[in-house]
Amino acid sequence: MTGEREARLNPDLVRRAVLAALEEDGAWDDVTTALTVPPDQRGRGVLLAKAAGVVAGLPVGEAAFKAVDPAVRFLPAVDDGSSVVADTVLATLEGPLASLLRAERVALNFVQRLSGVATLTARAVAALEGSGTRLLDTRKTTPGLRALERYAVRAGGGHNHRFNLADGILIKDNHIAAARARGLSLAELVAQTRAAAPHLMRVEVEVTSLDEAREALDAGAEVLLLDNMPPEEMRRVVKLARGRAVTEASGGVTLERLPEIAAAGVQYVSMGALTHSAPALDISLELALA
Amino acid sequence: MTGEREARLNPDLVRRAVLAALEEDGAWDDVTTALTVPPDQRGRGVLLAKAAGVVAGLPVGEAAFKAVDPAVRFLPAVDDGSSVVADTVLATLEGPLASLLRAERVALNFVQRLSGVATLTARAVAALEGSGTRLLDTRKTTPGLRALERYAVRAGGGHNHRFNLADGILIKDNHIAAARARGLSLAELVAQTRAAAPHLMRVEVEVTSLDEAREALDAGAEVLLLDNMPPEEMRRVVKLARGRAVTEASGGVTLERLPEIAAAGVQYVSMGALTHSAPALDISLELALA
Amino acid sequence: MTGEREARLNPDLVRRAVLAALEEDGAWDDVTTALTVPPDQRGRGVLLAKAAGVVAGLPVGEAAFKAVDPAVRFLPAVDDGSSVVADTVLATLEGPLASLLRAERVALNFVQRLSGVATLTARAVAALEGSGTRLLDTRKTTPGLRALERYAVRAGGGHNHRFNLADGILIKDNHIAAARARGLSLAELVAQTRAAAPHLMRVEVEVTSLDEAREALDAGAEVLLLDNMPPEEMRRVVKLARGRAVTEASGGVTLERLPEIAAAGVQYVSMGALTHSAPALDISLELALA
Amino acid sequence: MTGEREARLNPDLVRRAVLAALEEDGAWDDVTTALTVPPDQRGRGVLLAKAAGVVAGLPVGEAAFKAVDPAVRFLPAVDDGSSVVADTVLATLEGPLASLLRAERVALNFVQRLSGVATLTARAVAALEGSGTRLLDTRKTTPGLRALERYAVRAGGGHNHRFNLADGILIKDNHIAAARARGLSLAELVAQTRAAAPHLMRVEVEVTSLDEAREALDAGAEVLLLDNMPPEEMRRVVKLARGRAVTEASGGVTLERLPEIAAAGVQYVSMGALTHSAPALDISLELALA
Amino acid sequence: MTGEREARLNPDLVRRAVLAALEEDGAWDDVTTALTVPPDQRGRGVLLAKAAGVVAGLPVGEAAFKAVDPAVRFLPAVDDGSSVVADTVLATLEGPLASLLRAERVALNFVQRLSGVATLTARAVAALEGSGTRLLDTRKTTPGLRALERYAVRAGGGHNHRFNLADGILIKDNHIAAARARGLSLAELVAQTRAAAPHLMRVEVEVTSLDEAREALDAGAEVLLLDNMPPEEMRRVVKLARGRAVTEASGGVTLERLPEIAAAGVQYVSMGALTHSAPALDISLELALA
Amino acid sequence: MTGEREARLNPDLVRRAVLAALEEDGAWDDVTTALTVPPDQRGRGVLLAKAAGVVAGLPVGEAAFKAVDPAVRFLPAVDDGSSVVADTVLATLEGPLASLLRAERVALNFVQRLSGVATLTARAVAALEGSGTRLLDTRKTTPGLRALERYAVRAGGGHNHRFNLADGILIKDNHIAAARARGLSLAELVAQTRAAAPHLMRVEVEVTSLDEAREALDAGAEVLLLDNMPPEEMRRVVKLARGRAVTEASGGVTLERLPEIAAAGVQYVSMGALTHSAPALDISLELALA
Repeated sequence: MTGEREARLNPDLVRRAVLAALEEDGAWDDVTTALTVPPDQRGRGVLLAKAAGVVAGLPVGEAAFKAVDPAVRFLPAVDDGSSVVADTVLATLEGPLASLLRAERVALNFVQRLSGVATLTARAVAALEGSGTRLLDTRKTTPGLRALERYAVRAGGGHNHRFNLADGILIKDNHIAAARARGLSLAELVAQTRAAAPHLMRVEVEVTSLDEAREALDAGAEVLLLDNMPPEEMRRVVKLARGRAVTEASGGVTLERLPEIAAAGVQYVSMGALTHSAPALDISLELALA
Repeated sequence: MTGEREARLNPDLVRRAVLAALEEDGAWDDVTTALTVPPDQRGRGVLLAKAAGVVAGLPVGEAAFKAVDPAVRFLPAVDDGSSVVADTVLATLEGPLASLLRAERVALNFVQRLSGVATLTARAVAALEGSGTRLLDTRKTTPGLRALERYAVRAGGGHNHRFNLADGILIKDNHIAAARARGLSLAELVAQTRAAAPHLMRVEVEVTSLDEAREALDAGAEVLLLDNMPPEEMRRVVKLARGRAVTEASGGVTLERLPEIAAAGVQYVSMGALTHSAPALDISLELALA
Repeated sequence: MTGEREARLNPDLVRRAVLAALEEDGAWDDVTTALTVPPDQRGRGVLLAKAAGVVAGLPVGEAAFKAVDPAVRFLPAVDDGSSVVADTVLATLEGPLASLLRAERVALNFVQRLSGVATLTARAVAALEGSGTRLLDTRKTTPGLRALERYAVRAGGGHNHRFNLADGILIKDNHIAAARARGLSLAELVAQTRAAAPHLMRVEVEVTSLDEAREALDAGAEVLLLDNMPPEEMRRVVKLARGRAVTEASGGVTLERLPEIAAAGVQYVSMGALTHSAPALDISLELALA
Repeated sequence: MTGEREARLNPDLVRRAVLAALEEDGAWDDVTTALTVPPDQRGRGVLLAKAAGVVAGLPVGEAAFKAVDPAVRFLPAVDDGSSVVADTVLATLEGPLASLLRAERVALNFVQRLSGVATLTARAVAALEGSGTRLLDTRKTTPGLRALERYAVRAGGGHNHRFNLADGILIKDNHIAAARARGLSLAELVAQTRAAAPHLMRVEVEVTSLDEAREALDAGAEVLLLDNMPPEEMRRVVKLARGRAVTEASGGVTLERLPEIAAAGVQYVSMGALTHSAPALDISLELALA
Repeated sequence: MTGEREARLNPDLVRRAVLAALEEDGAWDDVTTALTVPPDQRGRGVLLAKAAGVVAGLPVGEAAFKAVDPAVRFLPAVDDGSSVVADTVLATLEGPLASLLRAERVALNFVQRLSGVATLTARAVAALEGSGTRLLDTRKTTPGLRALERYAVRAGGGHNHRFNLADGILIKDNHIAAARARGLSLAELVAQTRAAAPHLMRVEVEVTSLDEAREALDAGAEVLLLDNMPPEEMRRVVKLARGRAVTEASGGVTLERLPEIAAAGVQYVSMGALTHSAPALDISLELALA
Repeated sequence: MTGEREARLNPDLVRRAVLAALEEDGAWDDVTTALTVPPDQRGRGVLLAKAAGVVAGLPVGEAAFKAVDPAVRFLPAVDDGSSVVADTVLATLEGPLASLLRAERVALNFVQRLSGVATLTARAVAALEGSGTRLLDTRKTTPGLRALERYAVRAGGGHNHRFNLADGILIKDNHIAAARARGLSLAELVAQTRAAAPHLMRVEVEVTSLDEAREALDAGAEVLLLDNMPPEEMRRVVKLARGRAVTEASGGVTLERLPEIAAAGVQYVSMGALTHSAPALDISLELALA
């Protein structure tokens, strides 16, 4: 199977992201390097993971070095998605030293952040191991970096939720409350939405109890989002939904809670922290200057 | 005194950041809201901090709501930089419900991230309290968000290091190693750089020992970056530099290590984690739908 | 019910589209108007439909006039989606004559094209009347104008297919042929895709015969695209799919063929001509200059 | 002679148009292809005209495939401007199958539309054959695509009118009416405009009768636009203008009316339908997957 | 008469130019002002011409102040195109002092440059006074500022040559030499070009002698560019061209040479120095801080 | 020493500047060249300095030719920063003639302007020769071209002042006046600013007298800007500041006044005319067409 992990990074998006970041960092106007490194001095070095984790974003890092100077040679030593121990060489670099120094921080900022996301994702996937429950990201991403962060989630072994508000239907608590304020029951809301919804989209409904789950299912919900539900109730909803709808747990999900959520039998669990609170992976550029 | 904290957010930058994020999130094409919320239903609600922290980015959040719909009313209840306890109302909102829902996630993604940075900064500043040592950010920021994250650092009570490679001189280990590979001593490198440097810029030099510190000072270094130095050695460098150069500690700085670093007497300490690893502050939009 | 027709036009997109078109047309450098119309001469007029049709894009036309000159007053006389006879006034305008002339062509180019799409859509919807079959657009849109043209399809009473390759799954003939070239059956391809597909997306499969339809259904297809199928075979597939999958007819769809397609009982029919070959609706700006 | 048909397509414009369209179509995030086609499967195929017509835009189509993947090989089999019968191969392609599928729709959307314009143009040019009357386009183009559509008109054998309001002078009915409302005669308006007009521009004047034509000519009009004039009157104006001004017929021009317009002896005839109502030429990508 | 001088500045272009310049100048991050001026301190002042000249660009300057802060009040004291003596107040300003200081340099950079162009233009126009010869600019403008600089030329009393290569035909020495290298005479080149040229464009031909002028005229040239021609020969060409073509002198034109060129009777003279070498007009912002 | 002159031109900035300028000039739609030069005719030529000066911007010119047509070969004959006599060949070119003609004006507009800046700079540097005083530019640059013009200043032997308001502190007359209006003395303002200023930035203070200089120095000013000061007073301030602060003269600086300013012993002198009033260097493209 090819798998969604293959979805290629949009090279035009990477190019634009990298150029914008280099401009933000004043890479071409690096005054220190201009004052201290002659244009003909060359450098060699490695990108080194200084902590264990899962790597993501090496092609973005490569693009940063190449954007500053096409003469830089960048050889990845591992693929994105690889799990590495501390002190693993991720890539070797060679080229004009000044160019390596100008691009260093931007390249690292991308690779460290994306590897941080992949690493946290992989830890969460490990916590689900054996359960069959899949891990999902959310829309709680860094503004401007959603496509890259979702890519990092895939590199870490996770799956992607909808990209944005336009490409998936999720009836949440506020939509339901708003309908009730207009005198519309949950069942009526779901049924009307399903009837009018685009024919390639499933309708997901957030439910907080078994009763709501039943109401949503009977009205045509194809995916249930179990919001902050105790394990026991989750289990009952999963049983009820079997064969009728996909189940997703969400809300207050932490690494610690993942096993009990998985044990409840949900097919998916989504976790905002993957993208909004993943610490960066410690990676550095180590140059060999003889 | 007016203080650098007053530096205003570039409204054009905020506008562009917010529009790009809304487009990334498909805010105007929110299919769920289009299917479930009639255009004339109104909503009221609050931005609520669900955890204690320091707030930053409320004007960015406001801009997100207003960009979707100028008819939304947004009243901040606190100023950026305020320290709040859990369950504090940060702002009240009122307007077309559909507009509130379309902008919600983008607004929160900005405010949660920036408040996360401000909160971690404030904790670090608290760890330095009484010492006179100032906290600095680094260039380890999220690509595309540097100006906003630096603003969040200021909101948290920190100070900003150079914005980018173009507006500050910092001779780092690699510059020094490269010079040595060309047969140039640290002293020669610093002296030549100072002689050629722009007249409004100070020259900062990374040193790893008392000897290097002395060599850099004698050659004209105006700021010393003490890289990963043991407290005892830091203390000696600080003493040596007094009246001759500003001192900054850096490298492996954690909340836990801040007090001992401050105790060494450095004037500044810089900490990459402020921007590369701050967890988001938990903030939500709570709507009242009667 | 609120209905997807309510999805609002992204005002930032409209603003950018209109500014780009005005620049393309040199609207601010209209040399004829500069040479012949004094700045203080005022004008009044109407947008007049010179042929019968369904109107779409009036807010875009309004944005064009206002972008050239905020002093122009533009009063729509009908709403987008209205069916009008020849010689219907669509809007009245008043303002500096030079501004009206500078924006005229750009405004008309948008409104004529979008109304052309809406008009052809409405004719197709009329051909389906009473059948319960819904009309869909395709991705055969004008580069750069997809969002606006889809809006026009909705204005004409049609529904939208997936927006683009990223937000819907449609396994087409070439995907199937490629799988077969790798030794994978249609059933295997569909089953693997469904297993790996995002949980909010349905899987649509293009089929050309009853046998393929059965194979796809059994493997988990949720939507069947009946490509260029004779009415009799369509009928059989529809019967087979009832309660198991949604059906969509496609391929060589013309106004003339719509009734027989609808009679076959499919739930949807998609028609590329709606956007790639709709003739413009004849609309003009008639000024009253006393 | 080199001829204006040689004007090269701005490669930067083509690049931007193609990248924008690919992004609009989510080409890099094609979820179906990611799920069903492995990265190493290759494909071969042809762009096939399924109806007779004149081809335009092959270089734009090529740019679309190459933008998605520089590894795609694209060999045009005919040149833009070629007249082809149904089932003619326009180009052969070879490369990673996934890349071919990702770019297919965008490439076809450009080539089909531009070939549609070229085909309608060629039909109109054929209707003028032997007359010496040249066919012109108008400013009634698709917003954002004017340069490409004008190129397609040239590929079909037509000529281009002014590009926009900034690069040609055309005094139209509304300018004349506005002048009269200020007490200025047609002759006075034309004379004043000619006196103040840029020295490299001719002044074209719209006239509706022989009398107006005479008045415009005497006042210095260098080109006359004969708006919706009966053939007999056109003939008289043409005779009057001979040696003094160029003549152009316009207004309500259809393929059917072209011969009688040409017979009236005008040098040019302009036709808005070339760009606002040309149906797309049916072209498809046929892959050979063994 | 309305006159081309009325052509309005494209407000979207002005807005983009001003925002780009403010970003280039770091206006929103003015560190000095942030450190020294409290947000609530107000300021008043004037834009003062410190030398005599002709003013152009006040609306651009106004846009700069307003872009930084809509609360700034800007009252022009003179119109663009006004001739002023030294120490003339051009505008009065009032608003938050910090905002005035942030925008000051960008506003002045625009107004000083554009007024410099207008001033040099006015001096050249004065040198032509009484002759009937009109002054033209050229394409030798500052990259990115052509529209604004042409506006400044008009403000100074000059006229504009073609905007760019796309909107005017000028057969220059190199085109002629290239044709001759292909065995084509000047007459043949001109005749073929005229036959194929767009019908709204005149054909201008660069000639260096009376013989070439005659050849070009006989072949249909409508405008003659007299390149670096001695006054006596210009006079002869002017006489020959009377009633048949417009004449323009060009090449090595200085303020000193303008009277003798005008005396030769040419209708136009073009001068590159207007835009490529005009010194800035000295203008400053004088604040009254009590 | 490597020297700041090595700071490389941002290739992305050059590419964008060149593409924007080519679009502004309609280079790809050059109607004259399309009508007169066949695509297969080739051309050779040189960029020729027609006056003595210092060259800057050849790589920008090269980028312009290459952007129009990568097939153009461009061989610089001299490096940027070279001093040349009249009639020096700056570069040789070879390629499709039409491409050379399309890019000619844009390439020259950049090279002429930047060489003009470098030439004026070199004249000013020459006037300072032997004095040890360095020449600085200012922020009085052409909007949009600051980075390129600063590069030209370096090519001419000058040095750069701060890039913009964000990367250097300069307390000017208005800041001081504003502080005084709030009851703050110069000394207090300087001391407070120094205390709050970023640790890598020096504080420069504008002073108009020996007394102010003393006050600023005592309060911690690290750079003094001597505004429009008579030579005698400059001398006294220089003496006072020796070993305590850097000195910079500014205000009304002309080539004529430079020697006496240098004689006063200041370390720097800044001169706005370098960028706001440098006449273009006369450079032309001379083609050899056999």
